[in-house]
Amino acid sequence: MNIQDTICAIATAQGGAIGTIRVSGPEAILITDRIFTPAGSSVPLAERKPYTLTFGHIKDSRGEIIDEVLVSLFRAPHSYTGEDSTEISCHGSSYILQKVMQLLIDHGCRAAGPGEYTQRAFLNGKMDLSQAEAVADLIASTSEATHRLAMNQMRGGFSRELANLRNQLLHLTSLMELELDFSDHEELEFADRSELQSLAARIEHLISRLADSFSTGNAIKNGVPVAIIGETNAGKSTLLNALVGEDRAIVSDIHGTTRDVIEDTMNIRGITFRFIDTAGIRQTSDTIEAMGIERSFKALDQAQIVILMYDLTRSLNDFRTFYEKVRPHLAHKQVVLAMNKCDAAGCLPDRLPDFIDTASGSNWHIIAISARQRLHIDRLQSLLVDLVHLPDIRQGDIIVTNIRHYEALAHALKAIRRVQDGLSANLSGDFISQDLRECIFHLNDIIGEVTTDDVLGNIFKHFCIGK
Amino acid sequence: MNIQDTICAIATAQGGAIGTIRVSGPEAILITDRIFTPAGSSVPLAERKPYTLTFGHIKDSRGEIIDEVLVSLFRAPHSYTGEDSTEISCHGSSYILQKVMQLLIDHGCRAAGPGEYTQRAFLNGKMDLSQAEAVADLIASTSEATHRLAMNQMRGGFSRELANLRNQLLHLTSLMELELDFSDHEELEFADRSELQSLAARIEHLISRLADSFSTGNAIKNGVPVAIIGETNAGKSTLLNALVGEDRAIVSDIHGTTRDVIEDTMNIRGITFRFIDTAGIRQTSDTIEAMGIERSFKALDQAQIVILMYDLTRSLNDFRTFYEKVRPHLAHKQVVLAMNKCDAAGCLPDRLPDFIDTASGSNWHIIAISARQRLHIDRLQSLLVDLVHLPDIRQGDIIVTNIRHYEALAHALKAIRRVQDGLSANLSGDFISQDLRECIFHLNDIIGEVTTDDVLGNIFKHFCIGK
Repeated sequence: MNIQDTICAIATAQGGAIGTIRVSGPEAILITDRIFTPAGSSVPLAERKPYTLTFGHIKDSRGEIIDEVLVSLFRAPHSYTGEDSTEISCHGSSYILQKVMQLLIDHGCRAAGPGEYTQRAFLNGKMDLSQAEAVADLIASTSEATHRLAMNQMRGGFSRELANLRNQLLHLTSLMELELDFSDHEELEFADRSELQSLAARIEHLISRLADSFSTGNAIKNGVPVAIIGETNAGKSTLLNALVGEDRAIVSDIHGTTRDVIEDTMNIRGITFRFIDTAGIRQTSDTIEAMGIERSFKALDQAQIVILMYDLTRSLNDFRTFYEKVRPHLAHKQVVLAMNKCDAAGCLPDRLPDFIDTASGSNWHIIAISARQRLHIDRLQSLLVDLVHLPDIRQGDIIVTNIRHYEALAHALKAIRRVQDGLSANLSGDFISQDLRECIFHLNDIIGEVTTDDVLGNIFKHFCIGK
Repeated sequence: MNIQDTICAIATAQGGAIGTIRVSGPEAILITDRIFTPAGSSVPLAERKPYTLTFGHIKDSRGEIIDEVLVSLFRAPHSYTGEDSTEISCHGSSYILQKVMQLLIDHGCRAAGPGEYTQRAFLNGKMDLSQAEAVADLIASTSEATHRLAMNQMRGGFSRELANLRNQLLHLTSLMELELDFSDHEELEFADRSELQSLAARIEHLISRLADSFSTGNAIKNGVPVAIIGETNAGKSTLLNALVGEDRAIVSDIHGTTRDVIEDTMNIRGITFRFIDTAGIRQTSDTIEAMGIERSFKALDQAQIVILMYDLTRSLNDFRTFYEKVRPHLAHKQVVLAMNKCDAAGCLPDRLPDFIDTASGSNWHIIAISARQRLHIDRLQSLLVDLVHLPDIRQGDIIVTNIRHYEALAHALKAIRRVQDGLSANLSGDFISQDLRECIFHLNDIIGEVTTDDVLGNIFKHFCIGK
């Protein structure tokens, strides 16, 4: 990771009145001075105070004025990156911005990669990795809840929680070492073990709470995953349109970053739902179609809520066949059995068909609707909102929203549970210390105490250029 | 025009790493202070120096942090608008930017209209109207030539030329008045008249040069208008594709602002050509189609170059009929007779059909091509480039690019010519002074010496918000 070079990037989107170019690195001020002429004064930027604005001109090598600009000046370590930096505020013309970029590059800058400013801020100790990751979330935030979680994380709320955890783990480690030192005094050992166990239990509880918060965090950030499943022509698409149409909700296509599935999200009373397309679940002998169905099942497995559509105009036996196929995928989910076409069928069943097996831990709900006539769609929406039970997020609440953090917490949780098991089984302190170290390692991973270029590259490549 | 209120607007496009909100007006600093808490210091913005940056937080009424921001501070008259101003640089999240806007509005700001910052800069005497108009051109500039013209105009090049003209006109006016005062001395009058005539001629020459520059300015700004005309199936679309395809040129759809015609522009060797769709010129008894054809003729009349396509596989008589129809519209134009399908026809005519009338002042050129086989397309392109004769624009050249300016110059030109006629016809000084005043009036119109709200509204409504 070379942070000896000076980077530049256009930090604003194309098409505004103002365009800003960021320059950061050891030669940021020097290089900006080479293309910038202050108006009404000959004092170069290098001799000006930090946190000041200077009006002047960017000129090309022939002396032609490219733009009248304002230059903001920052000196290390008091800048976003922790390096010497300038920000050149130009007229928002793509021609001008490209020209200024070209001049900066001609005079020794390198065009920055995605997230390289934030990466430098991390490498220069301005923020830890979880804070750096929150910057991208903050920029992407579109609602009060996502904004609040990202802001809290960026301002170090999560980092402080992790530091607290780490201190407790270090305390536990030092107690273990104390125990090892006194391992010949048998009576002492037993006294310590119970104290160690209660300390380990407290740590396990904290880590487990954080890991559990991910389902909330993920629901807020990415929406509550809802799968609408049913036989062909059961009215799935009509229902989706009814749900969207009635609410004039925010609808967008989220293209999954890792798979090529298109999902519809909509906001119902402040909660974002992510409806997952599961079209194509039916009996088939076609290999390709079978692969598509497998993918549908995968989507179904990711859902928190499943809307199972039953077409009241068809035979219950057909539905039973369909149900038997999806049944293994419904365990421990909220399942809404939507009896569709109730206008045509005219019946309003109030109880589950008796072949439905409620012993799988699923929570079943039944509702009669007509997707086409938009009958009882409001009731279905209320039911969905009720099923989510998202807690109110207050400023300062620690909620994990990042899958990388969740994975690290899951590993840490396994490690601390091995510590607990070891303590119960009266294993030697040497073995237990190994698990303690692993637990600390995974927590450190979140804040980026020890990182490889690969990990960093992976995190920052999802940032936008100029951040 | 109320400039007692304080306005705010998002000045950057949506989607970047950074988003900037501009606040301007008498209460700009006060209102910003109400929602901004500086970090590590309690000194409010109101007590800070202009041209400084302050890091801190925007908080909502509940004290919740909306964003960590940098605030730039400007004091009247040393700001873009000439008023007290702040610029709040936020993370580029649409949620954050909207929230900050809402807070500013809650605390006394009004959301700015398009171009309102530049309009205030004009009203506060920071720039004249032609400079203000250049700001929009500068932001829209996409090439070196358009950028250079806009920058020169914004920096007052055009305004200085107009001031020079006005001084000469005022000098002429005072000489006229002197003549009136001494109107009883007949011998004096004759001496003055010849001096007046040569001065008027110099002014006429200057105005006429400026007005003439508009064809160049317009060609640079909007592209050289080229009409491709021909009978149905003569290969017009194929030619357009060939011209674009061969060049990998910049192709875009320019939606006309005043009419609903879609045009294709392409850049060939640094010159932007604007190809005008003239589909549909053929004999018809259909009223609607006849209206379409009338529109095509209008487009043809606007063209500087006309590519007249003749399908070599058809009879020359058919083409003759077609030619007779368009002939009145070809006067004083560059006309390229493109003999298409030369691959199929196999002939390569080197002279114009004898029915073509070259007495209309048109400049005729003949070229054999095959649009489909892409034969001699490069020659056609070279020919087009040769026909344009755009002068090299150097920094400082005064080129009129704005149709409002062109119209004012055309009026001024008529007025100064009436002055010349009056001087030649030995009209009374009273009559001539009237025309002189009218000439000055039209020149003043360009820089906005006297403007109405209507005129201003019309100019600034085409600006983007935040500028």
